[in-house]
Amino acid sequence: QSPKESTLHLTYRFALFFLAGSLAAFAYHALASTNSPWRQLHRLPAAHYLQTRDEFAVYSVDELNAFKEFYDKSVSDSVGASFSEAEQTNIKEAMGSLRLAQEMYMAGKDDKALRLFEHALALAPKHPEVLLRYGEFLEHNQRNIVLADQYYFQALSISPSNTEAFANRQRTADVVQTLDERRLLSLDEKRDALSAIHEANSALRRAKKEAYFQHIYHSVGIEGNTMTLAQTRSVLETRMAVDGKSIDEHNEILGMDLAMKYINASLVQKLEITLKDILELHRRVLGHVDPIEGGEFRRNQVYVGGHVPPGPGDLALLMQRFERWLNSEQSNSLHPVNYAALAHYKLVHIHPFVDGNGRTSRLLMNTLLMRAGYPPVIIPKQQRSKYYHFLKLANEGDIRPFVRFIADCTEKTLDLYLWATSDLPQQIPMLIQAESDGGEVAKLQSYGAFYESAMDPGLGADP
Amino acid sequence: QSPKESTLHLTYRFALFFLAGSLAAFAYHALASTNSPWRQLHRLPAAHYLQTRDEFAVYSVDELNAFKEFYDKSVSDSVGASFSEAEQTNIKEAMGSLRLAQEMYMAGKDDKALRLFEHALALAPKHPEVLLRYGEFLEHNQRNIVLADQYYFQALSISPSNTEAFANRQRTADVVQTLDERRLLSLDEKRDALSAIHEANSALRRAKKEAYFQHIYHSVGIEGNTMTLAQTRSVLETRMAVDGKSIDEHNEILGMDLAMKYINASLVQKLEITLKDILELHRRVLGHVDPIEGGEFRRNQVYVGGHVPPGPGDLALLMQRFERWLNSEQSNSLHPVNYAALAHYKLVHIHPFVDGNGRTSRLLMNTLLMRAGYPPVIIPKQQRSKYYHFLKLANEGDIRPFVRFIADCTEKTLDLYLWATSDLPQQIPMLIQAESDGGEVAKLQSYGAFYESAMDPGLGADP
Repeated sequence: QSPKESTLHLTYRFALFFLAGSLAAFAYHALASTNSPWRQLHRLPAAHYLQTRDEFAVYSVDELNAFKEFYDKSVSDSVGASFSEAEQTNIKEAMGSLRLAQEMYMAGKDDKALRLFEHALALAPKHPEVLLRYGEFLEHNQRNIVLADQYYFQALSISPSNTEAFANRQRTADVVQTLDERRLLSLDEKRDALSAIHEANSALRRAKKEAYFQHIYHSVGIEGNTMTLAQTRSVLETRMAVDGKSIDEHNEILGMDLAMKYINASLVQKLEITLKDILELHRRVLGHVDPIEGGEFRRNQVYVGGHVPPGPGDLALLMQRFERWLNSEQSNSLHPVNYAALAHYKLVHIHPFVDGNGRTSRLLMNTLLMRAGYPPVIIPKQQRSKYYHFLKLANEGDIRPFVRFIADCTEKTLDLYLWATSDLPQQIPMLIQAESDGGEVAKLQSYGAFYESAMDPGLGADP
Repeated sequence: QSPKESTLHLTYRFALFFLAGSLAAFAYHALASTNSPWRQLHRLPAAHYLQTRDEFAVYSVDELNAFKEFYDKSVSDSVGASFSEAEQTNIKEAMGSLRLAQEMYMAGKDDKALRLFEHALALAPKHPEVLLRYGEFLEHNQRNIVLADQYYFQALSISPSNTEAFANRQRTADVVQTLDERRLLSLDEKRDALSAIHEANSALRRAKKEAYFQHIYHSVGIEGNTMTLAQTRSVLETRMAVDGKSIDEHNEILGMDLAMKYINASLVQKLEITLKDILELHRRVLGHVDPIEGGEFRRNQVYVGGHVPPGPGDLALLMQRFERWLNSEQSNSLHPVNYAALAHYKLVHIHPFVDGNGRTSRLLMNTLLMRAGYPPVIIPKQQRSKYYHFLKLANEGDIRPFVRFIADCTEKTLDLYLWATSDLPQQIPMLIQAESDGGEVAKLQSYGAFYESAMDPGLGADP
């Protein structure tokens, strides 16, 4: 290249950059000064793969409006459109904490600032101002861009015309999406490392057996079952009753076992997962406890905390759409962890059964993961409140924290297998037990603590 | 009336009697000297109401032959067409005992004779000679015409051309039928006495509650469940596990409870009992233990001791015919105890389920009894071997001992209620418990012994 040519090239590039910059600034100004609802859709990363409500895409306009109303109601119920007097007092105190937090932040007292931000958030978890300021602190001071973006997103959901929230998200959304994608690639690597271990490897076989019991123990534990891991194992190995436990608690364990055997013997190999399969899964999950409701859609309205699932009359249609989505090209092109987590969320959102929705959804998720070469993922019962919190966030419009949580659990489960099959360990580690387990807990405390911190939603997704 | 007229009348009567007597003697001689198979049908009481195999009445000839072959095989299997060497030795010894028994009988040593007859029967239970001689002893010496007739019937089934057996049955069959009918009338009287007690009577309510637990305790106990009555009660009242028992044993109890609630809430009022009802009943009986098989017909051949139930391919047709019979005018015109016992036998004979056939059949029987104003009948677990023995006799062609056994249980259950609601008792009696129950057993021994003797098949039907 001659010097002249390269100068020309450079000038040309500068001109292009200038033009692009001007256009961007203009567009930003134009958009920031308007409240048009399509703004968000056009400017923020269009994460189609994380759309949770595409089952409504082919509804008629009337149907769509009916659903929108239904959803808006359940969202506004949980978000809280108006504030009570007690809430007003809380908000006033939160604003005080927030001001103080920012002063501390300016003064370089980061620890004090963090505690004050957290206090403000606890007092007014739905206040855009708190979400924005805390998010900015997390983004710039704590390097936790994922959690920051989540708070900006939340602020924008609550107040769609908030220009600050929008500007912040423009800065963070793409970065976070890239981080999320990179995260999934690292999961694939661990999965491939696990796949490379021969089926006959005795350590792997032992790990699988151990994980089988842990999986059941945690999945029923999340729903309130009080059996310890050792008792769960005893129930499955001896089929004898455990003194002091309810018969239902025994039957919940037997149900998970029956369902897992069905997945291993049938669903993992099937090309399509049909409604019939989901009903058969549920029949096994709930059948021991309730032979009448096992394998049947509910016939009544139910209420799940702040969430009001669809009425019984809509279940058949919604489940048909869910089945179509499950076997669509679109969903099959997703990363397996996204696909599995979304399937879990959608099913538990529709809540088609009287009971056993959570267990069936987790089993469906694990079926999809197993079909993609992943082990069945354990969601630890100690993470119960986080798990429900992320499901609630998904109901409010942001599915990503839930997907990240599932990714965390997937990684943790993969680590469990890889650690068990490495040359180092003498014994397979157990996830932390309930307090009542005494001795075992102390032994596992360090592992449990490691687990807890690794599961932290904000830090977990940050590579 | 003038003396002349009455003399004429008398002469006329004598002539008629003479003619009838001659005809009878002639007919008897003609029939006794031939082996024609219709002989039995024409001369013995045609107890249509106790036909167990009328479900084949509308089959094609080919179908009928196929079934006949199938039945003949299962009957000859259990009756034993040919004898092994060991059996030959037994028969030789039995013949010795039989000769000795008859010598003792002639010598007036009845007790010794009885023991020797029983010894002979134990050695050669299918030998016509033993059955006939023992039957005659029972008929003439022990005044047990019912059991005598049963043995003659059995001898005739094994050897249809046996003229002695035929002659004996001609003497006993009608008498026994009359006794059986009289027995049922006395049950109706007790039922009416029970119906006269007001629903709100507190003793009756307590008796019903107690009987509810006993009914479940005995019905699962017959199938091998080891829970005591107190444990059964605790399982139902607390829904907590009993230490040292299998989870299945708990679930068997929960299943009976669920099925009983279904009967009380739905089946007792229904005009027709359909196949769907029977499947729903079974779903509840077995569902807790086996959510997959509960409410489903079996898909495999099964074997029940000497009995080979129909193949899975024939179940749909046989069950349809059973349903038709259940709701036919013919069956509805039977005495409720005959109807209920027959329904029980037919269902357990078809054996449509992998497991829970006995419990479902007993519940169906009790549904039919309850619709006729009877309480649900308890078949005590201590009577298990008798119960199975009578079912086996029914398979071999004589349903009457089974029906009598059900009549005994019905009477016993009625007595339980009547005794509990009379002015005398302070406490509701319990049926005898398993040996492991210790203290309770001693307390109830006398009642249990009374129960045992009252349940004796031969004596029970003898008024």
